[in-house]
Amino acid sequence: MASGGALVFQAEQLQRFIVSALTSVDIPAGDAATCAARLVEADLRGVETHGIFRLPQYCQRIQAGGLNVRPRLHIVRENPVTALMDGDNALGQVVVTHATDLAIRKAGETGLAWVGTFNGNHAGAAATYTTRALAHDMICMYMTVANGNHMPPWGGVEPILGTNPISIAIPAGQEPPVVLDIATTVTAHGKVKLAAQRGETMPIGWMMDRKGQPLTDPKRAAEGFLMPIGGYKGYGLNVVIGMLAGVLNGAAFGRGVVDFNKDFVSRNNSGHMILAMRVDNFQPADTFKKEMDRAIREIRESEKMEGVDRIWLPGEMEYYQVQERQAKGIPLSASVVDSLQKLAAELNLVDRLE
Amino acid sequence: MASGGALVFQAEQLQRFIVSALTSVDIPAGDAATCAARLVEADLRGVETHGIFRLPQYCQRIQAGGLNVRPRLHIVRENPVTALMDGDNALGQVVVTHATDLAIRKAGETGLAWVGTFNGNHAGAAATYTTRALAHDMICMYMTVANGNHMPPWGGVEPILGTNPISIAIPAGQEPPVVLDIATTVTAHGKVKLAAQRGETMPIGWMMDRKGQPLTDPKRAAEGFLMPIGGYKGYGLNVVIGMLAGVLNGAAFGRGVVDFNKDFVSRNNSGHMILAMRVDNFQPADTFKKEMDRAIREIRESEKMEGVDRIWLPGEMEYYQVQERQAKGIPLSASVVDSLQKLAAELNLVDRLE
Repeated sequence: MASGGALVFQAEQLQRFIVSALTSVDIPAGDAATCAARLVEADLRGVETHGIFRLPQYCQRIQAGGLNVRPRLHIVRENPVTALMDGDNALGQVVVTHATDLAIRKAGETGLAWVGTFNGNHAGAAATYTTRALAHDMICMYMTVANGNHMPPWGGVEPILGTNPISIAIPAGQEPPVVLDIATTVTAHGKVKLAAQRGETMPIGWMMDRKGQPLTDPKRAAEGFLMPIGGYKGYGLNVVIGMLAGVLNGAAFGRGVVDFNKDFVSRNNSGHMILAMRVDNFQPADTFKKEMDRAIREIRESEKMEGVDRIWLPGEMEYYQVQERQAKGIPLSASVVDSLQKLAAELNLVDRLE
Repeated sequence: MASGGALVFQAEQLQRFIVSALTSVDIPAGDAATCAARLVEADLRGVETHGIFRLPQYCQRIQAGGLNVRPRLHIVRENPVTALMDGDNALGQVVVTHATDLAIRKAGETGLAWVGTFNGNHAGAAATYTTRALAHDMICMYMTVANGNHMPPWGGVEPILGTNPISIAIPAGQEPPVVLDIATTVTAHGKVKLAAQRGETMPIGWMMDRKGQPLTDPKRAAEGFLMPIGGYKGYGLNVVIGMLAGVLNGAAFGRGVVDFNKDFVSRNNSGHMILAMRVDNFQPADTFKKEMDRAIREIRESEKMEGVDRIWLPGEMEYYQVQERQAKGIPLSASVVDSLQKLAAELNLVDRLE
């Protein structure tokens, strides 16, 4: 299955492998399938950092007892348009998938819904949740508190904030839907690690040192911090996302956040928020989607900068990536395949992903 | 009333002056008072670019017939949790104040509400709307399509996007509320003009030229474009804000946006969205506000960078500015006072703001 240095797998094969691994560490089959689906969707979208790459780490946490394998998700407070859900320390993908589907169900009945969760875990790629609402002709918004702190407040040097991402999905007609999925830091911690491995220099703006000076040597990453997008503006956006997804739900925020890359035992208490809104509150869905198509084409067909082949809308590259990878398979790097084969051996899986 | 080069006025005096000017160009007294209140609140917050400074331009539009002085705001579509409002080309402050108060009333009954508007106009400072929900123990979010295009899509050179801002207000207890109010461009067009007037060089990152290279000479601003915060991330956020506040409401977006600084006649069809959510959906309001206080103090009291006196939360500086300016008055620059006195003479106002 080799293809240009990478190994290529069909989505179904990765789905089966993940289910097999998760059930072997005692996750119920239904929850395993849900988690696998979100991880594979991330890989299909080309967001490898939130795909099957995470599986060994998830299994490590489960085996260390840091995650509840028999969770009872339950609603703590509820009315027709909102719900607060206790994730009971389940896999993050299980918690947020249920929360998203609840928001969609409620918004289907009322027009608009906001569901908050606490006591969850790392839930992978934000867009795998917001895109669930698109087929229902709904707009969907998602925010979460990241599972590790690598950024100080603006003017500070103590990293008590994470990459706190936001995703917003908006349906379109014949055009791909518009799907924003961004961290509020300029780059991710994973990209810094990658640059260090490759011996590369980082662009100015990715990180700063304790004096606020640009830090471009990724090997010195431990001496510095991630930077917010747009300086104090991104810091502000980062903080309000953390408060809406964390503080409002009684979930971890600030020093209460557990670094899930270092501590595999402590309860993460991750918080997430998800909001769904029917577009036909305001316009017939078909009319709205035609207007979206028009707006999308106006942007794409506007004058390009010299040397630029195409102007992309948010989420458009990922949309085409999904189509291509559904047809041709998902390439995984040799190091990811190695780590999965090692996991398969440890867990005594029949499927060795060969 | 001179004070260090600037002239200082009490808020009540500016409120009376604005009402007097707007009623003299045939705006009904109630609408004039609403618009005046939002402009003065902006000045109290220290956001002078969205305060009384705008009054001459508003009057010019009204006199040119570009604004409806006898508007009938009305709801086009409605359910218990959403409403779409036709602003009937009224003053933007009138439209968005009504929309905000409707969202607060609906959220008071149901827990959550989203109100969209079209056929509005420039509405001033975003935070003057979101902060209205705070006393009701609600979280409030606001987005709008800016009234002029100065930014191309990412990879493009045709400015079809504005500074599209977002504001999010979150109540706190003893601490000032957290109030984000940011444009999604690194800087505002007004700041570029100011730098040109002062003969200053702009920092790298404010603007780029048609080849994507940094543009730092503000006198060459017409050759370049504003930059989004965080590169393609801010571009994406900008676009989804424009779609939620513009396209969803049937309001202007993209090439349909009228540049309100150049065209005083064409209907602006500005779009705005406002969302309100009761915090006691999820926690008793007092409990939530105590937790907010704790989160705020954790950030403020975290370790500071060398040379930094204080870490600020979003909206905190503006909160203290309001207190100071309510006590000591609002300083206006000589050029703003000149323009207001000129306006007073033109409109034959009794009040000459002396």
